[in-house]
Amino acid sequence: MAAGLFADKGYHATGIAELERAVGLGRGALYHHIASKEDLLWDINSRYLIELIDGGEELVAMDLDPVERLHRLSRRVMSSIASHLPELTVCFRETRSVTGERRQSLLALHQRYEDVWVATLLAGYEAGRFQTADTLAVKALLGMHHYSYLWLRPDGPRLPEDIADFFTELILNGLANRESQPRGRGRRRQ
Amino acid sequence: MAAGLFADKGYHATGIAELERAVGLGRGALYHHIASKEDLLWDINSRYLIELIDGGEELVAMDLDPVERLHRLSRRVMSSIASHLPELTVCFRETRSVTGERRQSLLALHQRYEDVWVATLLAGYEAGRFQTADTLAVKALLGMHHYSYLWLRPDGPRLPEDIADFFTELILNGLANRESQPRGRGRRRQ
Repeated sequence: MAAGLFADKGYHATGIAELERAVGLGRGALYHHIASKEDLLWDINSRYLIELIDGGEELVAMDLDPVERLHRLSRRVMSSIASHLPELTVCFRETRSVTGERRQSLLALHQRYEDVWVATLLAGYEAGRFQTADTLAVKALLGMHHYSYLWLRPDGPRLPEDIADFFTELILNGLANRESQPRGRGRRRQ
Repeated sequence: MAAGLFADKGYHATGIAELERAVGLGRGALYHHIASKEDLLWDINSRYLIELIDGGEELVAMDLDPVERLHRLSRRVMSSIASHLPELTVCFRETRSVTGERRQSLLALHQRYEDVWVATLLAGYEAGRFQTADTLAVKALLGMHHYSYLWLRPDGPRLPEDIADFFTELILNGLANRESQPRGRGRRRQ
């Protein structure tokens, strides 16, 4: 519930009194249960990121076809976002609101999560299945998936797994209709 | 400078006194020059979004090859983000901090901007150059580009236009190495 307030109003715009109402505690009681509002923020940020990392590192360790691994990673991320939309919104948007040493820990978690995508692309590239493992391709994939916190409706007509499959097919096969143009894969600058 | 503070600390975490220091005004003076802190937020949000819309609608109106239009749109967006990183960070992150009627106006601007991408994909699809104009393809493109506010370094080794070209080629031609697998473009679920 705290995640819902942080996601909806933003961390800094959310008052302690509102948080207390949201978690069903009396005035002043929240400070007895959690050390501070920022502890709540840290808990939300780290917990769901760790869940994404654990799921992703499991996939990286499995002996999977690189295309299949990409499909599964995409599905895990999209279904996490759909199942925990307020929490992941906080994760993707409020990193800078965490201060001090915990900010560093959080940035390290973000890096470990990104490394899952790096490893997934690299394995596919080394196996000759992907054309590149360029950092920009990683950033492109991260952006495609994470931006969904802004538009995804968990009760929308398309299942998160179907959205993931659409994204994976799009990034694998490309938007261009190859029947209408030469098949060359070189850079076509006009 | 206000944009830098909002981008760095977040809108709600930025105090009036800091804003006054940043814009070089004495205590209390900011309120004489701008009606409120939220006016500043609105100005930043709307101004750069309108710039993106104007540039995009110009491209949509031009008689261009759809692939070329996509390249140019991508370059405009990436170079805008690189040139106005704090402002676009505020644009992409602080929409919900704008309240009341202006929130509605801002959402309408975001929609007009998204419509530029929709029109770009649709024209390519109708011309037989793109395989789809699905909303999800639009969301994928928006995500790839906008997420860059989190990692783009305007003084980094790759020019924003080169990053744009990488993204456009990737989305057009796909990540899959087609030499190592069948050429069929059907859905390959494993």
